[in-house]
Amino acid sequence: MATARNFSGGREEDSYYADEVEEKTTTASRRKVGKTMSSSMELELESVEKIFEAKEVPPWQKQLTVRAFVVSFILGVLFTFIVMKLNLTTGIIPSLNVSAGLLGFFFVKTWTKLLQKSGMLKQPFTRQENTVIQTCVVATSGIAFSGGFGSYLFGMSDTVAKQSKEANSAQNIKEPSLGWMIGFLFVVSFLGLFSVVPLRKIMVVDFKLTYPSGTATAHLINSFHTPQGAKLAKKQVRALGKFLSFSFLWGFFQWFFTAGDGCGFVNYPTFGLQAYEHKFFFDFSTIYVGVGMICPYLVNISLLVGAIISWGLMWPLINNQKGNWYSADLPPSSLSGLQGYRIFIAIAMILGDGLYNFIKVFSRTIHGLYNQFYRKDPSITTVLPVAGGGSNSTSSTTTTLPPPLTYDEQRRTELFLKDQIPIWIAVGGYISIAIVSAILVPHIFHQLSWYHIVVIYIVAPVLAFCNAYGTGLTDWSLASTYGKLAIFTIGAWVGASHGGVLAGLAACGVIMNIVSTASDLMQDFKTGYMTLASPRSMFISQVIGTAMGCVIAPCVFWLFYKAFDDLGQPGSEYPAPYALVFRNMSVLGVEGFSALPKNCLMLCCIFFFAAMLINGLRDLVGPRWSKFIPLPMAMAIPFYLGGYFAIDMCVGSLILYVWGKVDKEKADAFGPAVASGLICGDGIWTLPSSILALVGVKPPICMKFLSRGVNTRVDAFLKKN
Amino acid sequence: MATARNFSGGREEDSYYADEVEEKTTTASRRKVGKTMSSSMELELESVEKIFEAKEVPPWQKQLTVRAFVVSFILGVLFTFIVMKLNLTTGIIPSLNVSAGLLGFFFVKTWTKLLQKSGMLKQPFTRQENTVIQTCVVATSGIAFSGGFGSYLFGMSDTVAKQSKEANSAQNIKEPSLGWMIGFLFVVSFLGLFSVVPLRKIMVVDFKLTYPSGTATAHLINSFHTPQGAKLAKKQVRALGKFLSFSFLWGFFQWFFTAGDGCGFVNYPTFGLQAYEHKFFFDFSTIYVGVGMICPYLVNISLLVGAIISWGLMWPLINNQKGNWYSADLPPSSLSGLQGYRIFIAIAMILGDGLYNFIKVFSRTIHGLYNQFYRKDPSITTVLPVAGGGSNSTSSTTTTLPPPLTYDEQRRTELFLKDQIPIWIAVGGYISIAIVSAILVPHIFHQLSWYHIVVIYIVAPVLAFCNAYGTGLTDWSLASTYGKLAIFTIGAWVGASHGGVLAGLAACGVIMNIVSTASDLMQDFKTGYMTLASPRSMFISQVIGTAMGCVIAPCVFWLFYKAFDDLGQPGSEYPAPYALVFRNMSVLGVEGFSALPKNCLMLCCIFFFAAMLINGLRDLVGPRWSKFIPLPMAMAIPFYLGGYFAIDMCVGSLILYVWGKVDKEKADAFGPAVASGLICGDGIWTLPSSILALVGVKPPICMKFLSRGVNTRVDAFLKKN
Repeated sequence: MATARNFSGGREEDSYYADEVEEKTTTASRRKVGKTMSSSMELELESVEKIFEAKEVPPWQKQLTVRAFVVSFILGVLFTFIVMKLNLTTGIIPSLNVSAGLLGFFFVKTWTKLLQKSGMLKQPFTRQENTVIQTCVVATSGIAFSGGFGSYLFGMSDTVAKQSKEANSAQNIKEPSLGWMIGFLFVVSFLGLFSVVPLRKIMVVDFKLTYPSGTATAHLINSFHTPQGAKLAKKQVRALGKFLSFSFLWGFFQWFFTAGDGCGFVNYPTFGLQAYEHKFFFDFSTIYVGVGMICPYLVNISLLVGAIISWGLMWPLINNQKGNWYSADLPPSSLSGLQGYRIFIAIAMILGDGLYNFIKVFSRTIHGLYNQFYRKDPSITTVLPVAGGGSNSTSSTTTTLPPPLTYDEQRRTELFLKDQIPIWIAVGGYISIAIVSAILVPHIFHQLSWYHIVVIYIVAPVLAFCNAYGTGLTDWSLASTYGKLAIFTIGAWVGASHGGVLAGLAACGVIMNIVSTASDLMQDFKTGYMTLASPRSMFISQVIGTAMGCVIAPCVFWLFYKAFDDLGQPGSEYPAPYALVFRNMSVLGVEGFSALPKNCLMLCCIFFFAAMLINGLRDLVGPRWSKFIPLPMAMAIPFYLGGYFAIDMCVGSLILYVWGKVDKEKADAFGPAVASGLICGDGIWTLPSSILALVGVKPPICMKFLSRGVNTRVDAFLKKN
Repeated sequence: MATARNFSGGREEDSYYADEVEEKTTTASRRKVGKTMSSSMELELESVEKIFEAKEVPPWQKQLTVRAFVVSFILGVLFTFIVMKLNLTTGIIPSLNVSAGLLGFFFVKTWTKLLQKSGMLKQPFTRQENTVIQTCVVATSGIAFSGGFGSYLFGMSDTVAKQSKEANSAQNIKEPSLGWMIGFLFVVSFLGLFSVVPLRKIMVVDFKLTYPSGTATAHLINSFHTPQGAKLAKKQVRALGKFLSFSFLWGFFQWFFTAGDGCGFVNYPTFGLQAYEHKFFFDFSTIYVGVGMICPYLVNISLLVGAIISWGLMWPLINNQKGNWYSADLPPSSLSGLQGYRIFIAIAMILGDGLYNFIKVFSRTIHGLYNQFYRKDPSITTVLPVAGGGSNSTSSTTTTLPPPLTYDEQRRTELFLKDQIPIWIAVGGYISIAIVSAILVPHIFHQLSWYHIVVIYIVAPVLAFCNAYGTGLTDWSLASTYGKLAIFTIGAWVGASHGGVLAGLAACGVIMNIVSTASDLMQDFKTGYMTLASPRSMFISQVIGTAMGCVIAPCVFWLFYKAFDDLGQPGSEYPAPYALVFRNMSVLGVEGFSALPKNCLMLCCIFFFAAMLINGLRDLVGPRWSKFIPLPMAMAIPFYLGGYFAIDMCVGSLILYVWGKVDKEKADAFGPAVASGLICGDGIWTLPSSILALVGVKPPICMKFLSRGVNTRVDAFLKKN
């Protein structure tokens, strides 16, 4: 299962949260398994597959049903809306795997039940089919993330460019348009898939990498398809449905009161007007309460700590230096003023955090590989891997005695190796797409030449492998770090005078798409391995899902772009924070530090090293104490946005915490479902809300918040007129 | 237990709701008994007192403990605040018996537990003591109702008088002032007690009147003092406490956003601005949601129907006749304009309903008495009652063979007759207070002479007896009908030229206080009878409670009066609707119909007879169908105020209904506790809120609701300035 989650700002940022989120998800779903399969739990240690032994595994062609793709399409659109909204508001995207699993199960189960009753059911609903749906949905919504609509791609636009004085010439701007966005995604999104397909046996069977997300999802699906699991799943779906409706209706209700800026619940000065001005308020957004319920406590607390440090302490202090450190005449959104400190200090922290984790994960990857190949670690079946060829798989020369295989492993490996994907398809596919891509991408971005692309495509498979391996080991996807690497290298290569800013952003997109889809696919192979789904059906499902995503995601973004005039404006409903961050990284890479206001570079350095230091400290003290040390990456996000969504998310944490205290079992079983409901309901509401905005239906009422003094003046004004 | 509940506009209005409320309360508390004393429930049919046999009944002096009166004082203040707030907002006052019982139990139980632990407990907490507390609390808060702070007494003020053109000369106005209010209450509130004391044996033991409220309360108290009952009570108290805190904090939170008129949640245009202008909105007031949960569905639906008929239909239609039926230049609050239709049509409905019920209950009273004395109905122990003398009580000549007494009856009667109150105390008390009163009241109201008072005091005992008997039979207290009778008769006698309007209102107060306290006391005797509390302790507790009420109620009113400048202004937070209604009844009685706008008299007649007709219909079709016919009295209230509180109350109904569907048992057991919590929390909040207003602390923020057009103009205005 893919990791279409966490901070869209980058995939190595994912790492933390993915790590912690998945840890949680895994525990939750394991608990679920533990609860619902209490009898089979003991068995599970021995064998899950024994339970499913009687159930026939359909051939791979039968796993790919039409109904699965219909459901995937519907859920794909839903999740794309959710991811897009999150992209454009704060960039924090939680794991949607649980919701996708639940809703997928629910849709198809209802469908098959109906058919069964009418006697028209030809094929029962299997866990393989469920895996296919989940793979497809997450692939689709993954594009909404890796497509960079909240980061590099939207960072090319005029709206974002205008917010800084540097590099906003025509050659560094590319306005979003449906045509080139879809084209671009199609030519770059499939390369990642082909590049790692041959490695699936090595990663999953031979290296036995864990892929925590993929494993958790597989557990969930397996548990759904046992009789007791289905019962609990139904209850969970009901809880999800209830909160989904609530969240949707609440979004609808709120809408009526948002005529004009600063109106409505999203601007509620819960802690007073002063706190509101410093962006501390509860904005009644169910989506972030839900996100907060899914994210680990530490993430939410880190966000809050970051908000307090920045908006509570630093910005007011820097604001006092107005006229001294920077000109007092600047508009509030100018990057040469206070806004500059916000953006660049956040970037510094993100980069510091990213660098630390890149070094860490990369060294672990190298170390792991070294162990695999040369140290002949007896805990791992050491094989001389020959890239995924069917002929080699059974004749792998075992140099040491392997530990005896369990029944589960035997059965899973047997089925995993049954359906092969010939290596010539992988290599041929990669090369042909790379050629097409090298021709077409320079047509979309004139700033990039064919040789830039070729160089990227030569390096890409290595990075894709590294990322897939690292994700399997740690569940941390480093996609956006590789993307940032491309920003700085390709940007500098192209040069400031030839549109290096835009070239950097475009290169970032190419790399991110390849690297991110590669690790997604490998996660799915792991899930497929554990649910006996064929690798072929996984691959095809991923390809179809990616293709759907390449069309759906730009269309959804287009809807937002057309519906909300102030998309990407700081302080608006959809500030798209990472678009500005990514663009400014590119500017920084190409043009240097000259644009920064006074003392900003110093502060950036402090926070860059502080981020690395805090990370180091976290690793040093071990898991027992590290849970009390905030995550630098999470702290950086509110630097730019303010604390309001951190407060939402902490409310979510609080609800979960209290619920857990009152009824631990219920909270564990239904917490994720409730959170998913809250997220999905608000996500669905964005569809009608953007349509209403598109057709020009405006909300009728403004719920305004005025201080007593201003209110008196307004009342007097209204009486006069 | 008294009926300090329902529409403060009048006690015969109580009747309906009291009837239905109590029916509900009774069922609820019986269910409670059924649940918690499931084993003893079967016994109960036989004997409750068997369960309590081992428990010693303390002598009456020991039932009156200091701690009981301390707790009563605290709860008395709390409930006075609640009743006062309800008086001044809509005039709908629910039964607070359950809350009083619960909280009284909780306070003393905690107190005794603490003492027990420290080894200092001298006297255990008995159900007799609990009855004493309840009696005292309800007597105290009863004065907040019968003192007329929301009706006749406040109707004398300049604020209310100014709203009509008629009879607002100085001799018809008396501004509220702490001194005369306390004095007035003291000289009139005790007469009722003395007038019915001698009748207690006839009413309770001989006639075996049911007194539904008193019986329900006794059931509640009995159930609390069985071990299982105490456990449930504790749980209920916890639920009450939870919702009390929530409701209090919500009130506190709301406060911050109410800087200025039309600000805050109380003005939330939940259904849009148009509906808001017609007073259809949900005002987020927890007190009325709680009230709605206690009131029967029919009351809430009737309110809503009334609101729709008046504000949805009639007023817009009449408003179209502006300039035709009445001058278009009038201020919106003028009684010669639309406001006049609202007030007088409401009065007509209230009077029509009152008259119907007066005739009905009075004829039933006469019929009942006739049966008691002459028909020798075998179902009633027919005795020749000799007014409550101790010497006669045991020697009452039984003319027919009485049905054998159950153990409960034997034991209860025995204890009820043990402690006597000599008849000379009753007669002496009544006469001496009457003399003092006849001298002092004309000093307070110069418009009344001593002979008016004497006439009232000669008639009063008869009315008091009638009301006590009627309440016992039907649970309908007709206090405010008798009050209105006094308005019209005394008002006309004094005459328009001598301040008849004020004299009418004052006479209404005298009668209402006597009649209302009389029926309250008799309810308490019934509760005491069933909980083995001594009549002496009941009487003394009622006297002390009344005395406390005579001081607390005016003080609380005074706090409101000083704290909120716009008290009594239509459209303000505290419109005190019945003050205007009562004053206009008095004006009508003294000055005739000359002041009414065009067609208003005709409409009034239609609604007067419609109210009688609907009531007749309700009685005709029987209880099975009558629950689908709205109550005219309830329909009349929103005529003046609008539908917002009806919507609150319907929300309360809806919550209870859904809760009942989901978990019937829990809803029955905890519904009243949750409702009480919501009511009490909001009630408590009025204390700090009025203190804040008094010391001049104003809320900092205005949450304003503007239409989109107005908002654009305001934004432009704010940008300019």
